[in-house]
Amino acid sequence: MSPDHQHAGAPTISEVAAAAGVGRATVARTLGNYGSVSDATRAKVLRAAERLGYQANTLARSMSTGITKTLGIVLADVANPFFSGVLRGISEAARQAGYDAIILSTDEKLELERDAIRVLLAKQVDGLVVASAAGRSDDVSHLSNAIERGMPVVLIDRLVDGLDIDSVVIDNREASRAAVSSMIQNGHRRIAFAWGPVTLSPATDLQQMHSILDEALWSDGERLRGYLDALEEAGIPFDTALVTHVLKNERQATRAVGGMLALADPPTAIFTTETEATVGALRALQTHNLRILKDVSLIGFDDSPWAAVMEPPLTMIQQPMRELGATAAQQLLARIGGDTSEPKKHVLPSTLLARSSDGPVPSHARR
Amino acid sequence: MSPDHQHAGAPTISEVAAAAGVGRATVARTLGNYGSVSDATRAKVLRAAERLGYQANTLARSMSTGITKTLGIVLADVANPFFSGVLRGISEAARQAGYDAIILSTDEKLELERDAIRVLLAKQVDGLVVASAAGRSDDVSHLSNAIERGMPVVLIDRLVDGLDIDSVVIDNREASRAAVSSMIQNGHRRIAFAWGPVTLSPATDLQQMHSILDEALWSDGERLRGYLDALEEAGIPFDTALVTHVLKNERQATRAVGGMLALADPPTAIFTTETEATVGALRALQTHNLRILKDVSLIGFDDSPWAAVMEPPLTMIQQPMRELGATAAQQLLARIGGDTSEPKKHVLPSTLLARSSDGPVPSHARR
Repeated sequence: MSPDHQHAGAPTISEVAAAAGVGRATVARTLGNYGSVSDATRAKVLRAAERLGYQANTLARSMSTGITKTLGIVLADVANPFFSGVLRGISEAARQAGYDAIILSTDEKLELERDAIRVLLAKQVDGLVVASAAGRSDDVSHLSNAIERGMPVVLIDRLVDGLDIDSVVIDNREASRAAVSSMIQNGHRRIAFAWGPVTLSPATDLQQMHSILDEALWSDGERLRGYLDALEEAGIPFDTALVTHVLKNERQATRAVGGMLALADPPTAIFTTETEATVGALRALQTHNLRILKDVSLIGFDDSPWAAVMEPPLTMIQQPMRELGATAAQQLLARIGGDTSEPKKHVLPSTLLARSSDGPVPSHARR
Repeated sequence: MSPDHQHAGAPTISEVAAAAGVGRATVARTLGNYGSVSDATRAKVLRAAERLGYQANTLARSMSTGITKTLGIVLADVANPFFSGVLRGISEAARQAGYDAIILSTDEKLELERDAIRVLLAKQVDGLVVASAAGRSDDVSHLSNAIERGMPVVLIDRLVDGLDIDSVVIDNREASRAAVSSMIQNGHRRIAFAWGPVTLSPATDLQQMHSILDEALWSDGERLRGYLDALEEAGIPFDTALVTHVLKNERQATRAVGGMLALADPPTAIFTTETEATVGALRALQTHNLRILKDVSLIGFDDSPWAAVMEPPLTMIQQPMRELGATAAQQLLARIGGDTSEPKKHVLPSTLLARSSDGPVPSHARR
């Protein structure tokens, strides 16, 4: 494909100029709403632009007021049901305000996030909602530069170090602590945690684990901190063998949890922090011929419709996905509307949806 | 929010002009790459634009060549795992060619699809991949107008009547026929179909059903035709009571399938055509205390990771989601690159992934 090939796309300024019988600069002045153009010429250009289907209104509005009625949404992974739920909330709230939402997915890759921000700025959106893939020590100048240039940005699902801007999250640490505590109250002391932060040098003690957490994606770090909080409250020593550090995909989760189940002292309960980790853990149980509840308890993050039709139905931490999305969109729209108040951190409540995948330690697993 | 409120967004042409010490028209000529500008002035403007972070390159490239290196993707529902898989395939293929993909989701609503096309044309994408929400008799001028204006468009997942353009689909009718036939070979004669086309006046006979199919979304129609083909092959009379016509959400599927399970002559097998229909059917079985395979067989469209960890694991029709997406992106990129050959219809193979949710009619259900 040759980069200078001119495809027969939307009408160009030249075509509008030819149709109106004026020069290109006149068309640019008219449609861009600047410089001096006589009323008669302006009418001629607008008629030609309309006849050819030139996107005159949007462009003119955009160039004269800076408002394009479009929000840019950057999500880490639209294939994750959590983000599809969030997206629905954003889109609905945007639509109600007469805005469109255009979406880019970054597959949890920071370089794709940088690219996405560049694209959205070029496409002249009015503001951004971002679920950033940035770890605590990553360079986030792509975000801070956009913010410095006056682009309103609202963070969703994840805080980003060094960015003191609006955000919409749940209390991941507390949600995680409560779920793990409920397992401990059921007698579990060997509780697997999938997923821990991705690292090639897993922690060998609690101190190293805290250093890893300092570098992790905010939500990952918070969820593991909640797990550690629950252990500490109950006086249960931290065992590095029960935390995964693998790449975040289902296959790796299956392998890592499978490895734990093969330990001499295997976990009697599993806590999973994302949908794919939950599916990976379920596959590992299946492979090891272990049944949920009867052999191993399980609680996961992010309820999905299928979790309710599993046998037994899965106990899950439910995030208010639509409400998270709607809150982010509304906060962003307020900023676009001129709200210059202090940055707001919206912390929405999550729910531990008790079903039947967690219970007492089975007698055959007691020691 | 006042529409003429000017927020402090990306630098404007005026700001670049002020910083460069030239007039706005000069900046427009320089960045738009038209008219006459001296080399010294051009350099001054470009330096100022760069200093201010003006998106000069993209805009200049777009205005001079018409190519923005962006694909517009319009999907019926990004929350549907099928479309998230497709999206991944599109994004990967686009990225490999140096293109970005921006996405709009239409929630299966035609008016939102019209809006999405308008937005993407205004944002000057180079081409469109569209999974259209249009039924057979709907007005699709939003698509035909874009095509007439030279915008390359590739249809994915669904053909649209009256648009003779590139498309990427599976053979829905044959996939459906093969799945239902395999159930018939297992002895089933009462096979429920969820979802049939949405209509307020369900068919009372086969002829009426065919009229409904003529109006339906293409893929919906094809899947039901495959079901009817399999029945006809086996000489099984069509029973309207076994086809749902409800709104397409999980709750409606649960209710409709539940109603069938309560019939005097209930289905012994269920064929579901989408993920939400599958979950709805599973819920209905749960409510009626019926177990998959032991009481009722089930085959569904669109494999998901969780289907493999169900007990028993679900037999599913697997579409090559990533490959569908990648093929659509590649076809679109070829058109953007100047390929003017005849429209191509890519029909990719699907797979009936045999697991353990379908089997013989249980003896207690035989009559």
